[in-house]
Amino acid sequence: MTDFAQTKKLFHLPEGVIYLDGNSLGPLPKAAPARMQTALQDEWGEMLITGWNKAGWMEQPARVGDRIARLIGAEPGHVVMGDTLSIKVYQALASALEMNPNRKVILSDSGNFPSDLYMAEGLIKSLNAGHELRVVAPEDIAANITDDIAVTLLTEVDYRTGRLHDMTALTALAHDKGALTVWDLAHTAGATPVDLSGAQADFAVGCTYKYLNGGPGAPAFIYVAPRHADAARPALSGWLGHDAPFAFELGYRPGPGIERMRVGTPPVLALSALEAALDIWDMTTMREVRARSVELTRLFIDEVEKRCPDLCLATPRDPARRGSQVSFRFEHGYAAMQALIARGVIGDFRAPDIMRFGFTPLYIDADDVTRAVDTLAEVMTNRLWDTPEYKTRARVT
Amino acid sequence: MTDFAQTKKLFHLPEGVIYLDGNSLGPLPKAAPARMQTALQDEWGEMLITGWNKAGWMEQPARVGDRIARLIGAEPGHVVMGDTLSIKVYQALASALEMNPNRKVILSDSGNFPSDLYMAEGLIKSLNAGHELRVVAPEDIAANITDDIAVTLLTEVDYRTGRLHDMTALTALAHDKGALTVWDLAHTAGATPVDLSGAQADFAVGCTYKYLNGGPGAPAFIYVAPRHADAARPALSGWLGHDAPFAFELGYRPGPGIERMRVGTPPVLALSALEAALDIWDMTTMREVRARSVELTRLFIDEVEKRCPDLCLATPRDPARRGSQVSFRFEHGYAAMQALIARGVIGDFRAPDIMRFGFTPLYIDADDVTRAVDTLAEVMTNRLWDTPEYKTRARVT
Repeated sequence: MTDFAQTKKLFHLPEGVIYLDGNSLGPLPKAAPARMQTALQDEWGEMLITGWNKAGWMEQPARVGDRIARLIGAEPGHVVMGDTLSIKVYQALASALEMNPNRKVILSDSGNFPSDLYMAEGLIKSLNAGHELRVVAPEDIAANITDDIAVTLLTEVDYRTGRLHDMTALTALAHDKGALTVWDLAHTAGATPVDLSGAQADFAVGCTYKYLNGGPGAPAFIYVAPRHADAARPALSGWLGHDAPFAFELGYRPGPGIERMRVGTPPVLALSALEAALDIWDMTTMREVRARSVELTRLFIDEVEKRCPDLCLATPRDPARRGSQVSFRFEHGYAAMQALIARGVIGDFRAPDIMRFGFTPLYIDADDVTRAVDTLAEVMTNRLWDTPEYKTRARVT
Repeated sequence: MTDFAQTKKLFHLPEGVIYLDGNSLGPLPKAAPARMQTALQDEWGEMLITGWNKAGWMEQPARVGDRIARLIGAEPGHVVMGDTLSIKVYQALASALEMNPNRKVILSDSGNFPSDLYMAEGLIKSLNAGHELRVVAPEDIAANITDDIAVTLLTEVDYRTGRLHDMTALTALAHDKGALTVWDLAHTAGATPVDLSGAQADFAVGCTYKYLNGGPGAPAFIYVAPRHADAARPALSGWLGHDAPFAFELGYRPGPGIERMRVGTPPVLALSALEAALDIWDMTTMREVRARSVELTRLFIDEVEKRCPDLCLATPRDPARRGSQVSFRFEHGYAAMQALIARGVIGDFRAPDIMRFGFTPLYIDADDVTRAVDTLAEVMTNRLWDTPEYKTRARVT
């Protein structure tokens, strides 16, 4: 059984801060600085170019991918790291569209993270072949999986509301209608259990700087189902996805399986920080994390609804239908979040009126939740948000 | 005037090693570990999500881009960092093709780094609009810039031979024939002076882990000429290239100028290491680096030709026609390079028979060159390469 009091000690959490924004950027694992020093000094510094072989940098994207595979129910050897989530969305989507050439519709929902939609839009313009991006409300997705859909592009957990799609049911429905699926796990990986293999998902992508705690701008991952892995054509066909990168052939031949989804030189330093973060994930299971997450989000919802009547729950009340975040709508949500942050409770704000709080059992416990609600209740009861300094519009990531 | 003895002291160079592979992966700047600790502990650790604003992470890609702009003759505000070189090649090429819609030919040469060709091949397949990748010998490029060329895709310095294209002349010729230009500066940035603005280059891309010493897998850069910057459509249209990324609109609107070439969340940690490396570049000018580089490469060529008659120069003898590397062909080049590396002189090998040596004045001096030649002469004269342990084929980056 996971000792969450112990995992909490493995993170650096600034004095006086309750950090409920790990769904946006996870905190620093205490082991990351030492791991980074090893990568910098013992590997890069001492090995120089030979680090690609001696330090295992070349295999690092697959090695790290395997550690993430365990957390998302992927078959070992079918996840690889690199680039950013947006790039990986493009790769997955381009491959999926080619595998379903007689259909032209990408189905997504308005709760998808906008960058996924932007990447789809850019791809469609480049393809210039009559594709359409069809965006419906999240609750209307199932009804819109019709037999003209080439691929569904869905983020499992809605970045604003925390609403959780039913991956297994929607994937089955998509397959039944002849569509492929691309799942974005940005708010899922490390937040809720996923079973990519069991759900028979076709493609999945995700980032590692949120619940996985890989650091600002940490690399993304991509999963391709084993049944597709040797068939998918990488539109972004870079040398490290080549079957023989160091033969320097003039023509591209895709590498085996997921390897072909590699593009350029891997981000060794960033992957090293991520490796330190994943050591903590090795100490637990997604089942235990999920159980604790449900307790924490339930406690938060209950207490906030009791004490802050002006806040309106935007997240599904049924724990089975939400991820590991809780969002409340409030007209002055931006100012209220500023007031909270000024008092050491860090959540974030998403336009137009969403106050968002992430619950991350590796380092957040029930006592944190109670204290966060105390502060929130104080802000709301005393209208502490109603001051000019908090009302300026600003950029929040 | 640059004190190169001083800049040399700013790098960590392992005891007993002469490092002539900085054209593949530059060495560790001694200031990088401390800069990385700041990024990890003071920024990520203490600021958490607020680092995006407080530590300036959000503007880091443009801030670092401006420092590189100075080294490549780009106008300030027209270079931005992110992703890998291969991804940036794709972006530049996709934009350029769209800007020249009535033409279908991408012209490149067989000395281009294969990943650039692979990315072009992948793009062409995705576009499915009858484009052609025409690859000719490097010396035949000028004659092949005909009025059916949409865009030239050239690496200024040939990764194998070190041959330097005449960017100004070829760009003028391309424009004269109605073609656009994409220049890959992988082996140029930090190696030879470039004047993108003066040459009227249209697009340029490059990496930062070679001569710029940003570390393994350091991020790439992209330049778009000011006259195109508000017209180019980013095929990879990610949220950070959006005009208002934090408005989370459902539709994509490209940001102003080079900002639209940003895609996903920037690699903050990797960019921080690169910033430490760029501090050293602030102490010199490309003119001085080039003068010293020409001295070093000339000395190396002269001495090797005197003492190693079995090696055949593959690099242009005229310094004006080469970058900052020297390559020799030798049938047993792989084994000879292994023998050299075993004796502390690190260069690298490129199939089929190229022994490659990079000369990087920031930390390599004439004494290093002389000692490297002594070792090479010893390896060649005594056939030290002719042992089974060096003859196994292996992967070299």
